[in-house]
Amino acid sequence: MIRGVDMGERGYGRVNDEVIGRLVEVLGERNVKADIVERYVYSTDASLFSSLPDVVVTPENTSQVVDVVRIASEKRIPVTPRGGGTGLCGGAVPLYGGIVVDLSKMDRILEVDLDNFCVTVEAGITPERLNRELAKHGFFFPPSPGSKKMCTVGGMIATNAGGMHAVRYGVTRNFVLGLKLVIPPGDVVSLGGKVLKRCLGYDLIQLVVGSEGTLGIVTEATLRILPLPEKSAVVVAYFKDVSTAAKAVNAVLRKVIPSAIEVLDKWSIEAVNRYVPSLNLPRAEAALYFEVEGSEQEVERQIRVIVDACRSHGGETEWTSDSKEKERLLAGREIVGGAIMNIDRGRVRVYEAEDVCVPIAQLPRFVEEAHSISERYGIPVCIYGHAGDGNCHSGIMIDPKSREEWEKMRMMASEIYELAVKLGGNISGEHGIGLLRAKYMAGIHGQALHIMKKIKEAFDPQGILNPGKMGFT
Amino acid sequence: MIRGVDMGERGYGRVNDEVIGRLVEVLGERNVKADIVERYVYSTDASLFSSLPDVVVTPENTSQVVDVVRIASEKRIPVTPRGGGTGLCGGAVPLYGGIVVDLSKMDRILEVDLDNFCVTVEAGITPERLNRELAKHGFFFPPSPGSKKMCTVGGMIATNAGGMHAVRYGVTRNFVLGLKLVIPPGDVVSLGGKVLKRCLGYDLIQLVVGSEGTLGIVTEATLRILPLPEKSAVVVAYFKDVSTAAKAVNAVLRKVIPSAIEVLDKWSIEAVNRYVPSLNLPRAEAALYFEVEGSEQEVERQIRVIVDACRSHGGETEWTSDSKEKERLLAGREIVGGAIMNIDRGRVRVYEAEDVCVPIAQLPRFVEEAHSISERYGIPVCIYGHAGDGNCHSGIMIDPKSREEWEKMRMMASEIYELAVKLGGNISGEHGIGLLRAKYMAGIHGQALHIMKKIKEAFDPQGILNPGKMGFT
Repeated sequence: MIRGVDMGERGYGRVNDEVIGRLVEVLGERNVKADIVERYVYSTDASLFSSLPDVVVTPENTSQVVDVVRIASEKRIPVTPRGGGTGLCGGAVPLYGGIVVDLSKMDRILEVDLDNFCVTVEAGITPERLNRELAKHGFFFPPSPGSKKMCTVGGMIATNAGGMHAVRYGVTRNFVLGLKLVIPPGDVVSLGGKVLKRCLGYDLIQLVVGSEGTLGIVTEATLRILPLPEKSAVVVAYFKDVSTAAKAVNAVLRKVIPSAIEVLDKWSIEAVNRYVPSLNLPRAEAALYFEVEGSEQEVERQIRVIVDACRSHGGETEWTSDSKEKERLLAGREIVGGAIMNIDRGRVRVYEAEDVCVPIAQLPRFVEEAHSISERYGIPVCIYGHAGDGNCHSGIMIDPKSREEWEKMRMMASEIYELAVKLGGNISGEHGIGLLRAKYMAGIHGQALHIMKKIKEAFDPQGILNPGKMGFT
Repeated sequence: MIRGVDMGERGYGRVNDEVIGRLVEVLGERNVKADIVERYVYSTDASLFSSLPDVVVTPENTSQVVDVVRIASEKRIPVTPRGGGTGLCGGAVPLYGGIVVDLSKMDRILEVDLDNFCVTVEAGITPERLNRELAKHGFFFPPSPGSKKMCTVGGMIATNAGGMHAVRYGVTRNFVLGLKLVIPPGDVVSLGGKVLKRCLGYDLIQLVVGSEGTLGIVTEATLRILPLPEKSAVVVAYFKDVSTAAKAVNAVLRKVIPSAIEVLDKWSIEAVNRYVPSLNLPRAEAALYFEVEGSEQEVERQIRVIVDACRSHGGETEWTSDSKEKERLLAGREIVGGAIMNIDRGRVRVYEAEDVCVPIAQLPRFVEEAHSISERYGIPVCIYGHAGDGNCHSGIMIDPKSREEWEKMRMMASEIYELAVKLGGNISGEHGIGLLRAKYMAGIHGQALHIMKKIKEAFDPQGILNPGKMGFT
């Protein structure tokens, strides 16, 4: 954990009474918090990192965000934007102190435009609430991260969030049509709009998506939406080894693209069974969870394709389109995160090497070799995730009181990253770099890191936006 | 037309005998052409622009491209990459002379990886040949520009090419998983790979897609591919006005996403009928062409949805899944480009304002107001294009011998661009900026243009890659 980094080491300006006074002037007292309790609350996200901000602001509109960035620019004070605080890599941790900009008060739906199949929202809305509103019109916003009840659309844009439905619908970047972006020294740049295609010079929207708040603060977004499917169903299959499960996935993808293809390894299945024994999942080496969506006929056809593919690869298969039954069948996948947390009261899950992505055909090798690493260190690793796009979530479980296990965990994480890269994969499919994976950036990108640095300078020459992240900001 | 730009005005180095000698040394005589005939051939693309290169090279591998860029960097000589030369905006025209790098000899398929649903190719392959090879395995690469027989995958990446199937499958950027990019002063940067998701800092792949050869030379690409659909069908419908046609499109898109939704306006229909009278299309204000793909059942269902939507909006509707009949039904859309060229022997089509994109619900207003502009100037404009994503191709027909009509055409083009922007649209959906639309960039992007300039400098500090394009390079 990183604590008490000296704000001064990069020559950043300090948040003094004058700065606080000016923030209060533009935002009102209710939107400026500098007491120690608030600062503690905002010192961390869902990661292990922690660093105190000097002040937290909760702007209510874009113009207030502009004011904050203007004040910060004048004094060269770090500004760290924050959505739901659900990030696992420390992306919203204010490493050099300064101002945390919590965008959660900016959560309005500004326009639902069904004629143009898009919606314009403020950055602080959660995807779940957005989808609740859209459902009233028969539409939805497909990207669906595990944290959908708490994370924000702004945070999803910052990390190019994926989730279970990426295999069919794509990730957040595929749905962003327009952005309102606040950049230093306090300007608003409007990018894109309601248009589905554009070829207008460098695509700055695509550059901002996934930039983790280091290029600007997204305050509004226009998002593509789709009509809700008529029907959906779930197929679950249990396999004797991960390799045949992966072959079944390949066979399915040659015929249909389900809206989700999720996998649990044997340890994840074990964790689920210990956590909720009544689920009583079969003891298998791998469980696959498929979701399919479409017209009634199409759903039936997809079920047939999937069941055939799983059975012909030896999978023990169940399916349903009944909504209660769907919940029961999917329960294993839904609760696996919590189950892993509770597998052993003496152990906690450490979010490290928790989001590698490999070419989908390499999934079995990844699981097998990650299990070997786990055995070698004597520390349990549960693997689950998005089999349809090779994105594996590894739950490393350690005794938090053991210094030795922390050390082992770090070595294991390095090995898991190396394994993913060796298999042609990468170190993060959807969670991002933040602080957690910053040290790997130079090795991964080589010369391209220099280009990223220059891009950062183009947007933020003073280096005030979310400094210290990604290994080059 | 731009001719005879003085190479010296930006202080670029000259291609002298020493440079030619070094190029011959690394590429071999057969790959270096400096005679005037070859230089003329490479002085233009499918646009109205023309400017002589000093030398044309045809590298056979990435290492030769590196050598060319290294030599060019040393002497600060402009380097203009070229694919199939089918660009309509002058993107491949060597405005400041120098070296044209024709990548068409690099046209190999390096790997078809069906287990990972991707293919790795050299940049010079045409999408048609790629799809012919992929079809043998039951797969395809979905982006399908009108120039698919002649353009190259490298050119498609440079312009983020769209085409008829973007409404369902997306544009080129949605299919690029990995790139090999040569940047000054002669380095190879490998981006991405076979992985479907990544969250690893700024997404340089997404930045390079659509950058029109100004950030680097793409020599290889790893592309996502999909299984060929089981079946396909075509529905054509004729409407009494564009507005009801657009409503039918909206009604369709609320239930299914066809693989193409194309539109012809009344003048395009007229052009087709004059060009091939035997087609005898009904005299309508708008024709819609839908293509649908999927399983047999799904194709049937989509036909039903589309036919119902068109009929309930007063459309006269025909459909078929017979492959010969499909060709006949689609013929109007397929030949419209040629038909417009031949509508009047005394007129030629000028590619200006030919690719605006508007929010899809604004299509009727765009067509109506563009027709008013046409009437006001007394110059015919045929409008056709991708109704499913609001991307309109306007064919402006002028008498090329009339200086007055050239002048009018320029004013009309400006008005059409302004109209698109007024309707919330943009000036290019899929063809790009190049030289043609360079002068509009400052007005469109404002401050963001400054950021683009800095990004350009990050990749190419000497400004040798395709200079003079996009209004800021």
